[in-house]
Amino acid sequence: MKAVVLEKKGIINVREVPDTPTPAAGELTIAPHTVGVCGSDLHYYTHGRVGKYIVEQPMILGHEAAGTVVAVGDDVEGFQIGDRVAMEPGIPNMSSRASKLGMYNVDPAVRFFATPPVDGCLCETVNHPAAFTYHLPDSVSFGEGALLEPAAVAMWAATKARIKPGDVCVVTGSGTVGMLTASCALAGGASKVIISDVSSIKLAIAAKVPGIIPVDLTKEDLIERVHEETGGWGADVAFECSGAPKVYETFWKLIAPGGAAVIVGIPVNPVSIDITELQATEVRIENVFRYANVYQKAIDLVANGKLDLKPFITDTFAMEDAKAAFDRMAEGRPGDIKLQITVERR
Amino acid sequence: MKAVVLEKKGIINVREVPDTPTPAAGELTIAPHTVGVCGSDLHYYTHGRVGKYIVEQPMILGHEAAGTVVAVGDDVEGFQIGDRVAMEPGIPNMSSRASKLGMYNVDPAVRFFATPPVDGCLCETVNHPAAFTYHLPDSVSFGEGALLEPAAVAMWAATKARIKPGDVCVVTGSGTVGMLTASCALAGGASKVIISDVSSIKLAIAAKVPGIIPVDLTKEDLIERVHEETGGWGADVAFECSGAPKVYETFWKLIAPGGAAVIVGIPVNPVSIDITELQATEVRIENVFRYANVYQKAIDLVANGKLDLKPFITDTFAMEDAKAAFDRMAEGRPGDIKLQITVERR
Amino acid sequence: MKAVVLEKKGIINVREVPDTPTPAAGELTIAPHTVGVCGSDLHYYTHGRVGKYIVEQPMILGHEAAGTVVAVGDDVEGFQIGDRVAMEPGIPNMSSRASKLGMYNVDPAVRFFATPPVDGCLCETVNHPAAFTYHLPDSVSFGEGALLEPAAVAMWAATKARIKPGDVCVVTGSGTVGMLTASCALAGGASKVIISDVSSIKLAIAAKVPGIIPVDLTKEDLIERVHEETGGWGADVAFECSGAPKVYETFWKLIAPGGAAVIVGIPVNPVSIDITELQATEVRIENVFRYANVYQKAIDLVANGKLDLKPFITDTFAMEDAKAAFDRMAEGRPGDIKLQITVERR
Amino acid sequence: MKAVVLEKKGIINVREVPDTPTPAAGELTIAPHTVGVCGSDLHYYTHGRVGKYIVEQPMILGHEAAGTVVAVGDDVEGFQIGDRVAMEPGIPNMSSRASKLGMYNVDPAVRFFATPPVDGCLCETVNHPAAFTYHLPDSVSFGEGALLEPAAVAMWAATKARIKPGDVCVVTGSGTVGMLTASCALAGGASKVIISDVSSIKLAIAAKVPGIIPVDLTKEDLIERVHEETGGWGADVAFECSGAPKVYETFWKLIAPGGAAVIVGIPVNPVSIDITELQATEVRIENVFRYANVYQKAIDLVANGKLDLKPFITDTFAMEDAKAAFDRMAEGRPGDIKLQITVERR
Repeated sequence: MKAVVLEKKGIINVREVPDTPTPAAGELTIAPHTVGVCGSDLHYYTHGRVGKYIVEQPMILGHEAAGTVVAVGDDVEGFQIGDRVAMEPGIPNMSSRASKLGMYNVDPAVRFFATPPVDGCLCETVNHPAAFTYHLPDSVSFGEGALLEPAAVAMWAATKARIKPGDVCVVTGSGTVGMLTASCALAGGASKVIISDVSSIKLAIAAKVPGIIPVDLTKEDLIERVHEETGGWGADVAFECSGAPKVYETFWKLIAPGGAAVIVGIPVNPVSIDITELQATEVRIENVFRYANVYQKAIDLVANGKLDLKPFITDTFAMEDAKAAFDRMAEGRPGDIKLQITVERR
Repeated sequence: MKAVVLEKKGIINVREVPDTPTPAAGELTIAPHTVGVCGSDLHYYTHGRVGKYIVEQPMILGHEAAGTVVAVGDDVEGFQIGDRVAMEPGIPNMSSRASKLGMYNVDPAVRFFATPPVDGCLCETVNHPAAFTYHLPDSVSFGEGALLEPAAVAMWAATKARIKPGDVCVVTGSGTVGMLTASCALAGGASKVIISDVSSIKLAIAAKVPGIIPVDLTKEDLIERVHEETGGWGADVAFECSGAPKVYETFWKLIAPGGAAVIVGIPVNPVSIDITELQATEVRIENVFRYANVYQKAIDLVANGKLDLKPFITDTFAMEDAKAAFDRMAEGRPGDIKLQITVERR
Repeated sequence: MKAVVLEKKGIINVREVPDTPTPAAGELTIAPHTVGVCGSDLHYYTHGRVGKYIVEQPMILGHEAAGTVVAVGDDVEGFQIGDRVAMEPGIPNMSSRASKLGMYNVDPAVRFFATPPVDGCLCETVNHPAAFTYHLPDSVSFGEGALLEPAAVAMWAATKARIKPGDVCVVTGSGTVGMLTASCALAGGASKVIISDVSSIKLAIAAKVPGIIPVDLTKEDLIERVHEETGGWGADVAFECSGAPKVYETFWKLIAPGGAAVIVGIPVNPVSIDITELQATEVRIENVFRYANVYQKAIDLVANGKLDLKPFITDTFAMEDAKAAFDRMAEGRPGDIKLQITVERR
Repeated sequence: MKAVVLEKKGIINVREVPDTPTPAAGELTIAPHTVGVCGSDLHYYTHGRVGKYIVEQPMILGHEAAGTVVAVGDDVEGFQIGDRVAMEPGIPNMSSRASKLGMYNVDPAVRFFATPPVDGCLCETVNHPAAFTYHLPDSVSFGEGALLEPAAVAMWAATKARIKPGDVCVVTGSGTVGMLTASCALAGGASKVIISDVSSIKLAIAAKVPGIIPVDLTKEDLIERVHEETGGWGADVAFECSGAPKVYETFWKLIAPGGAAVIVGIPVNPVSIDITELQATEVRIENVFRYANVYQKAIDLVANGKLDLKPFITDTFAMEDAKAAFDRMAEGRPGDIKLQITVERR
């Protein structure tokens, strides 16, 4: 079959790879239709590594995927050939201590698509456990289905925040994850979400979502605006989605007494934190690593029109143009939220 | 000043009563503009009592009110004459053990408008603690402001449910509180809410809210429908809003493993419950008594268009027609959700 | 090998059965040393069924067991032949929706020792998943290790209660589960636990645990006593462990505003519940079905002397006297808390 | 009356001050019997300020106090002259938004004993709201009653941790608050608590509490020990009680996946935190500022023998030797846990 292969740092080929074997018990064979281009994919392409994970042999890229079931393994219930599905890409050891506790996302044994040496799913077919595969209703497109993966991070952030109905939220950073987090916070019960960034282009895209209030940090003071919007009380929940160390200088001042901070962005280096600021309001801090148990809920929100993912799909490339998609993403255009690649199965 | 007075069971007069005194420290004098007609008001009118509370002397009716500040007591910050406000009607002893824990609604010392022997607020002016008064934005009408009181019960139910983003909910009973609860559950993070009743008229009103799925119990099986809508898993949260003992026969079967039940409706007599059904799914049951700390959040949801209260205001009466409003409510027309009375201050 | 077999209702034989096969991947072969006699075992013996589970063919009894590892399957880490261990007897489908959420105990697919048609572990050896096997420190005896199974129910009840440090608790019913629940509540943070029963013998055993306050219902009013012990506030948590319908008449009055009820006992028939009593204090009700993720924590409490299981082991029988053990349990002597059987491997 | 007065930085006098006025409605007049010497008292003595709070006029010291009721104001229920009591020293505005939510400790309007310009209670009598006064059972001494104040911080830390029965905890820093936190964690449900420090003297005192495991950082690696004690899983809860920036270098590695960190110690300067370490295990971080709603629970634990405060009272001084007590505390002897002063009323 054909696949998009990262041969090594800087070299992507669309080429033949061995066919997918028959699915094992509990598995499905799925033909991906749309696969998103993600920052980690890009990082492997441009740097040859992400943290401790190093590309030491050719690897199929891609982990944000939706497609169609083409074969069903033994002991699988509820799936048939032809079903439209989305794939949750991390496969934990379900008997681990973390998985038994319902926190399969922090199981150290998780195997994750396109994380060396595990291949991704930018290819014609792939085997995947039925337990981590979800039906897409007819009203949810393959593109939206593929976007569920980054949306799942945002859903998990909104879930861990324990938003109460009507909470006022803040999101720092209006990138892909920031916009998705703001959208999920609104779908998840917030009355309004203030989102901040230095890019007016990104803020303009975010502002199209009803309930999102953009704050351009080059022109406006975020703390002041949050206090205005909350009668001086502060935000019930603040989501850090920028990964920028500078944000931590003011971040804690955005939060109401007894409020919550959810850390989604990943700063490359340690950040400096004034503990007395955390204590003064007794902020609760939640940290996010991927997601658990949110795919079905995200699908339900999309299918019922409460979470609109379509505005975040910027452009779509054919599989043979995969390299162009990655190169475009490497440009980092501010108006590019999500680029996707469609796979045609022969 | 003029007031709507329940002289005794069955007799309502709109008549002169003593003027409101100067507000004490921490208090505001408020001129109610719109006051809702509530089931408890009606019950005092038709039965002369609600449980242990007995009408033994003339009492001003009304506890669902929004109006305008006309005087400001000492030590009050943040309010000025002319401010448009809604009033939270229960005033606890804020130094009680329950209040110190943040559960002021279950403080046994709560004084509540129009609960004998405490007068209500269907009158020209009333004194009220600033701590339980909330600003209405210009975009929220007095009618919506008055409707915040029953909506606060629904908000509290949705809050205690701890809805996770995308949860599927069920509401049994499509009366005023049921419809408001369904709306608050949707605003509070549910992807969809299935609501059941035997009245097709009530269901038709509920069904106008996007995301509400009506189930007519005279025609459709609720358990089956819930299982269809949830892939056989059951609802994440079920709100009991009917108060009907019969509902308890099937209620627990609606709920997913580890789901929650929130009991809002008040059955007159004890109900029969099969404990083994509760245990099989380890349902968590939350019980609702009025509300605490939700007024501001409800206002924020209404102001931002996430909670639409307007469809639930069926009709509005002038103060001099107050008796007609109560008599109309006593008829119990299925299409009547909320009747309100406007007060004109001389 | 030899096993204690329930041939059919009323007939127990200690006889030869086929040997245990080689352990599968992820499994251990364990030689049980001590196995507790449980109410469900007894019920199969005396009635031939428990609810929908019917003894239709000979079944090995026993599910409360501790023993020694005698063989280690492939892919097992952390266990060696000779290790002393306790077995968690319910084996869920770890890929089910409930298991992925961390609630493997409510997975409908759970296979449970000695629940028809699944054999129990009152036999020389048994295969068991390593993921549900726990090391016993030297300081914890096999008898205590076997008692971990009913203690796990009590641990789970104490966990779901979300006891805050210093909470005052009540337990209704001083049977095996009631005493264990009282002990776990104390180990789990309660300052004191009031336990009620009609049996002075059972109460005398419970009263030996420091911090347990016995209330003999034939002589003392439980509500009065709880109010005395809590300055009129009520208990923070009440555990229902009797299964007696009569308890529900007064149960809710024991609980403080905002307190919790945990339902552990299993009433045979539906009980009558006054919903208005639940609402007046906004009690949170948790329901218990077996347990999840508590074995290791129970072992840590026993090993550190915070949970003393020894007083609850009343008597121990040799395997060849298994029938006598079941007959003794059928007598229902009030002083019998837990009877156990030791297995000698040839 | 006589009082211990900090005239200005460095000067303490025991001298006459004006008598306490008649208690207002809701207040008690209390004659303190024992008052603890606290780090903040000391800091005002040695530095003339704590953060933004500056000693600009003579101030009575002391905020950790237990004593006897000598007068009862109007509207007070449940207290009589002669009652032995402990005083919770922070008095919030109970109508503030934070107080209504049950978080009166983070109300910015809190008035706190011995925080400029508010006088403390190291004097013959003081007025105090009955709502923040707690009865001491006969079995709890005045010394233990006074120690409830720092114990309340520890109780609050243990409460916010949401310890599950049997959790393994770590405490970094074996000072007064560290030892109390370890004790409260054990009373609050932990199976064992590993406590670390560089002072072998402090560790030796802590190690007398059953269940506390001391780790001398000059001789042993804390991460290794925690992993040994938890089978490689990590601690369920880690309490930071040292305030030392260096601790943050390894702190997060002590915590199990999905575990909690509770920040009690107050570092003077911002600390450096590697966010990726927080995310890898999705640690939940709780921050502690004083305490709320824990005094009664602490008293219940002490009265029932589950929390032993006596080992932490190192020495007691008479009121006339108050200066000596403060000078001794300024020495910072490692064996000094808590010094107390007794007040004799003339």
